[in-house]
Amino acid sequence: MRKPQLVKAEGLPDRVTIYEVGPRDGLQNESAIVDVAVKAEFINRLVDAGLTTVETTSFVHPKWVPQLADAAELLERLDLPEGVRAPVLVPNERGLDRALAAGVREIAIFASATETFAANNLNSTLDDQFAMFTPTIQRALAEGLSVRGYVSMCYGDPWEGDVPIDQVVKVGARLVELGCHELSLGDTIGVATPGHVTALITAFGAAGVGVEKLAVHFHDTYGQALANTLTAFRDGVTTVDSSAGGLGGCPYAESATGNLATEDLLWQLDGLGIQTGVDLQKLVETSIWMADQLGKPSPSRVVQALAG
Amino acid sequence: MRKPQLVKAEGLPDRVTIYEVGPRDGLQNESAIVDVAVKAEFINRLVDAGLTTVETTSFVHPKWVPQLADAAELLERLDLPEGVRAPVLVPNERGLDRALAAGVREIAIFASATETFAANNLNSTLDDQFAMFTPTIQRALAEGLSVRGYVSMCYGDPWEGDVPIDQVVKVGARLVELGCHELSLGDTIGVATPGHVTALITAFGAAGVGVEKLAVHFHDTYGQALANTLTAFRDGVTTVDSSAGGLGGCPYAESATGNLATEDLLWQLDGLGIQTGVDLQKLVETSIWMADQLGKPSPSRVVQALAG
Repeated sequence: MRKPQLVKAEGLPDRVTIYEVGPRDGLQNESAIVDVAVKAEFINRLVDAGLTTVETTSFVHPKWVPQLADAAELLERLDLPEGVRAPVLVPNERGLDRALAAGVREIAIFASATETFAANNLNSTLDDQFAMFTPTIQRALAEGLSVRGYVSMCYGDPWEGDVPIDQVVKVGARLVELGCHELSLGDTIGVATPGHVTALITAFGAAGVGVEKLAVHFHDTYGQALANTLTAFRDGVTTVDSSAGGLGGCPYAESATGNLATEDLLWQLDGLGIQTGVDLQKLVETSIWMADQLGKPSPSRVVQALAG
Repeated sequence: MRKPQLVKAEGLPDRVTIYEVGPRDGLQNESAIVDVAVKAEFINRLVDAGLTTVETTSFVHPKWVPQLADAAELLERLDLPEGVRAPVLVPNERGLDRALAAGVREIAIFASATETFAANNLNSTLDDQFAMFTPTIQRALAEGLSVRGYVSMCYGDPWEGDVPIDQVVKVGARLVELGCHELSLGDTIGVATPGHVTALITAFGAAGVGVEKLAVHFHDTYGQALANTLTAFRDGVTTVDSSAGGLGGCPYAESATGNLATEDLLWQLDGLGIQTGVDLQKLVETSIWMADQLGKPSPSRVVQALAG
């Protein structure tokens, strides 16, 4: 299988952590409901390919996300090796109860950076969403869990115009104050460009949230994800979210393309000699297999090119 | 129509020139043969959208590229405004004769950076290809034409392993010595990553070919084109090839994706506030119209997202 020619560049990290979101963020946004045994095999194959952080599922109410209604059963089936981190998404205290019952050690909560998305997705407002997060985060921390905070719609949403950077920083900084060890800055609709990425990371730094607490989460809806990710690496970020095979589409645009594909990211990282511990060939084979399970081709350009 | 939020970044040029290759490189690699009237309208619409450099066609033998057999007729139909540059590809002296007869003022010639591609595409060798170019370039210059040199397979080809950077520089520097005013460094199969891009640009500089003589030409086969283009801008390059709507596919990979789409590029440039003079909305409308003519959707992610 073809590999990129290795040529390093200055000003980039030696190693980055890929935070794999395919099983949760990917499958949550696919129309097909995947069998729990297939999900377990998918996660096992991702771990076997070298991914060390895999968000496995979500304890959101099954009414809202029927694709992940089998969360508890899936976790029961998993027997992941020592050292592999397997966070789950938890929307509220009810979700936290279910996660705790399943023995979860890491959770992620999902906040909005814009009023309209808070209203549409969380039935809340920018301020009031914290009424839901605060007790969830506090109890999780008291139980010894670590908590990641997603901030969605950081660079634009489908309804509002430009999203003010200080508004995004305010939401994110508050999550860090509440005890989130990491923020994932989401470009949920894929519109960001590199200057915007740098400006947001810089503004977080000025507010006391350093790059070591930031992860980036780009969608490829407008083809911009990889250039933005590279920009974030230059700015010192070393954790990046991506989805094996580009699973997930984009729920807020008429496009087949959503999450940055882990393979497309890995091609760049392998070419740059940035260590990840992930085996591109095994990952591509996994995504080809998963595409077969879903009955539709992977939108990842690397998967398409190497599958041919 | 949605636009990117404008946030500038440091270390990038204020303005770049988009060298539009859709009518030539794009249509040459589409299986459909497009009517000459449609081609003329396509070019007129591209110019109306603000593109000032459009490679219109190729005087290659119609047996090899039937898609562009109408080159002379197309040029007769065009009446482009003052200041618009309309280069054509010319493979050899016979092609140059036809271009001169058509009143062309700028040509481009097409060289290979690898032995195998020189053999397969030009029936030649790395050295012997110059036997074809040298008299073509010399006569073109004597006629007062300007000559661009494409160097293809700069970062890899479908048959050989890694392509040595000094081999690419040797081919390119020789074209500049022969009188090419600009080199277009082609990632014909789309495998390049940012460190490789910088290393090649740096090596050309060391050989006396400065960034002002370099254009970049990336294919998006592996999803890497836009990150590589951004890297080239950071390295001082200010001319970039792209294809409206991503026309062209990739003739050397099993992928629908070839040339970097002008719209995907323009989204990044508009977001960064880098001037191009091109109107994104008019361009997207043109690519939607052209996709309709070809009977297949544009592979451009921006066109897909905005067409929805």
